[in-house]
Amino acid sequence: MRHSPIAAAVLTNADIDHVAGLLTLRESQPLAVYATDRVHGVLEANAVFRVVNPDLAPRRAMALDRPWVPADAAGTPFPFEIEAFAVPGKVALYLEDPSAAGFGSVAEDTVALRIRDRNGDGEFFYIPGCSAMPGWLADRLRAAPLVLFDGTTWTDDEMIRAGTGSKTGQRMGHMAMSGPDGSIAAFAGLGVRRKVFVHINNTNPALLDDSPERAAAIAEGWEIAHDGMEFTL
Amino acid sequence: MRHSPIAAAVLTNADIDHVAGLLTLRESQPLAVYATDRVHGVLEANAVFRVVNPDLAPRRAMALDRPWVPADAAGTPFPFEIEAFAVPGKVALYLEDPSAAGFGSVAEDTVALRIRDRNGDGEFFYIPGCSAMPGWLADRLRAAPLVLFDGTTWTDDEMIRAGTGSKTGQRMGHMAMSGPDGSIAAFAGLGVRRKVFVHINNTNPALLDDSPERAAAIAEGWEIAHDGMEFTL
Repeated sequence: MRHSPIAAAVLTNADIDHVAGLLTLRESQPLAVYATDRVHGVLEANAVFRVVNPDLAPRRAMALDRPWVPADAAGTPFPFEIEAFAVPGKVALYLEDPSAAGFGSVAEDTVALRIRDRNGDGEFFYIPGCSAMPGWLADRLRAAPLVLFDGTTWTDDEMIRAGTGSKTGQRMGHMAMSGPDGSIAAFAGLGVRRKVFVHINNTNPALLDDSPERAAAIAEGWEIAHDGMEFTL
Repeated sequence: MRHSPIAAAVLTNADIDHVAGLLTLRESQPLAVYATDRVHGVLEANAVFRVVNPDLAPRRAMALDRPWVPADAAGTPFPFEIEAFAVPGKVALYLEDPSAAGFGSVAEDTVALRIRDRNGDGEFFYIPGCSAMPGWLADRLRAAPLVLFDGTTWTDDEMIRAGTGSKTGQRMGHMAMSGPDGSIAAFAGLGVRRKVFVHINNTNPALLDDSPERAAAIAEGWEIAHDGMEFTL
């Protein structure tokens, strides 16, 4: 008997690496799908996502900037609340309108999640895509117990130099790990207790166990996420 | 350096198991994509497939009922020709119009491929989806050296009995392997030299090495495809 333990999904972006996973969860099994109206609009506009049967996998609107309690497809609430908020990012690459300023990005294209235990004070941030660290975001993350953060590239132009793509990390809506404008520098001094890079591109040398780049990230207090990682708050 | 050895793809259907693979071939690398106008229309209507950059992965129309020579993205022809022809099948499930007869299927929804060596007489048929074996199709396959054929289910209602779905194989556009209307019976007496089941659902007991169903298929001269299988004509 086929089974997925995943009872709900929260989509923080409509780009392919954030939505294609739905296509592998398409068996006839309950699943609650949360997203902004903007991202739900992309799912609606692409009939291929109907393979995740909306009768069994209800699509639910996710409000921004106020906490809400997610529930499974049957309506049973989870023991945590989520607050979603827009962060600097980008419209999905395949939806770009080259004639529009910023390639057509709007505020709901890329969101961060703050997830908090409803029965305690444990909380963490999940921010797999973020293209800049404005002061308000740094203030918001200050002293957080755990932040999972966008680790797409080590340097902004690494995909071009590796010959695997023509776009910079910034052009794809991501800040690099390294450099004066990078995430490692941006988090320095914020006092975040545990910092974990996620959403790491396969051109990023920090993925390699024995790379000097990984050693540099670890020396700055970062961890590199791996499959099966578990967190206790 | 990321690399895919796949230089071209021929889509025989727009259902998710025939098109979702494109989303994992999306790196910036040349790829020729052949399909009927009907299937290309589905790719066009689902912007998510633009992640396979049409500038690098040209979408080419595939004619039915006459041989053509495929070429890679740069235009270099392959040493074989393809003839595509419609077989009994179904519109992609996620595109069904319940108000239309046959759920809206049209002739180009499901096609078979005959692939023939341009420098010799080797040829084979690739038919991953087929819901019935009319006389004209049996005649066409008679004495073929190799046929790769739709092996989705063993019995028509196995997904319902397994509790993994609400649809029969027929309802999904597939003929079962077993039974008087099944593919094993339909191929008996056709004199096909090598018969290989492909596109096998994970509810099909013939997938299991030690099942009586697999033994029964083998006894009737069939092979069960596996990853990495190679064929010499």
